[in-house]
Amino acid sequence: MARWEPDSRGRLEQAALALYAERGFENTTVAEIAARAGLTERTFFRHFADKREVLFWGAAMLERLAVGAVEAAPESASPIDAIATGLEATGPMFEERRDYARRRQRVIDANAELRERELIKLASLAAALAGALRRRGVADPAATLTAEAGIAVFKVAFARWVSDSDSRDLPQHIRESLDELQAVTASRSALAPAPVTP
Amino acid sequence: MARWEPDSRGRLEQAALALYAERGFENTTVAEIAARAGLTERTFFRHFADKREVLFWGAAMLERLAVGAVEAAPESASPIDAIATGLEATGPMFEERRDYARRRQRVIDANAELRERELIKLASLAAALAGALRRRGVADPAATLTAEAGIAVFKVAFARWVSDSDSRDLPQHIRESLDELQAVTASRSALAPAPVTP
Repeated sequence: MARWEPDSRGRLEQAALALYAERGFENTTVAEIAARAGLTERTFFRHFADKREVLFWGAAMLERLAVGAVEAAPESASPIDAIATGLEATGPMFEERRDYARRRQRVIDANAELRERELIKLASLAAALAGALRRRGVADPAATLTAEAGIAVFKVAFARWVSDSDSRDLPQHIRESLDELQAVTASRSALAPAPVTP
Repeated sequence: MARWEPDSRGRLEQAALALYAERGFENTTVAEIAARAGLTERTFFRHFADKREVLFWGAAMLERLAVGAVEAAPESASPIDAIATGLEATGPMFEERRDYARRRQRVIDANAELRERELIKLASLAAALAGALRRRGVADPAATLTAEAGIAVFKVAFARWVSDSDSRDLPQHIRESLDELQAVTASRSALAPAPVTP
């Protein structure tokens, strides 16, 4: 008989992260995670498909938050402002779990398979954001380019937020990285040869 | 006895690409590639570690070309100009193989594992370009952000070059995408809240 275990999901997540940090993701089994959480393997598999999903179940929520905010941005918002709104909307999801996000990032950074999974997650987010811009009437390639640039900003901002010890939140880091992207692109030399239209 | 086969590498590459297009990457074996090229499996493995490497051996050259050009850019070049120079330097490598690049892209697009490998290749290129900027004295996060934005531009420009039927070359597409990135970021609203420095 399945027994209801209070916050079994959160307990499994904390146990998994602790074990991944202690002995490495690749050397941790689901049985060990369940044991550390004081739960059964069966309970683990009721919550997560596998030990990797413990680290990536938030991706779908991240995407829904960002895409929803892009879609809800004022009609007058420029593509880059809509993307900025979308990225900043993910802030609250992370803010209450800053320490968790830090520890998760260390586990990801230590494992090639997880780093690849993280890349795929961000590529999927870029595609979803480009789709949201297209639904706002933004044509390609502007839609794809703005979304990809937004993901570049998000990657840099997230890495800074995770590693910085100060009190700035993720949306602040996103705005600073956007400022930086704007400054960087504005410093492009006008001397570059003009594109030739055939 | 190993026999010298003229252009065995090129023949294996063409045979592999034809088979991947016909029956899918996942349904093609090394034995079939070798047979189609009129060569032995042993010859295949003298040139490629596995059937995936046939599609990705160019990644190292791509990285060397781009990084070398960033390092050789004039000292006065801004980070974004140095990255533009690096990306445009990859043009000749692709230009003489445009039809090949198109057929390769269709194979990549049709297979999830290959799409992931392509993401990893571009992430590695972004890291290498950021490293080249740092060696030019560009501090982080500007170095990482400029390199990541450059890869966003490259992705969009490459997709357009591969799918467009006109005569514009890859460097032209790169410059146009850079123009577009500049326009997109410049249209950011000044009304966004200013970053708060604690």
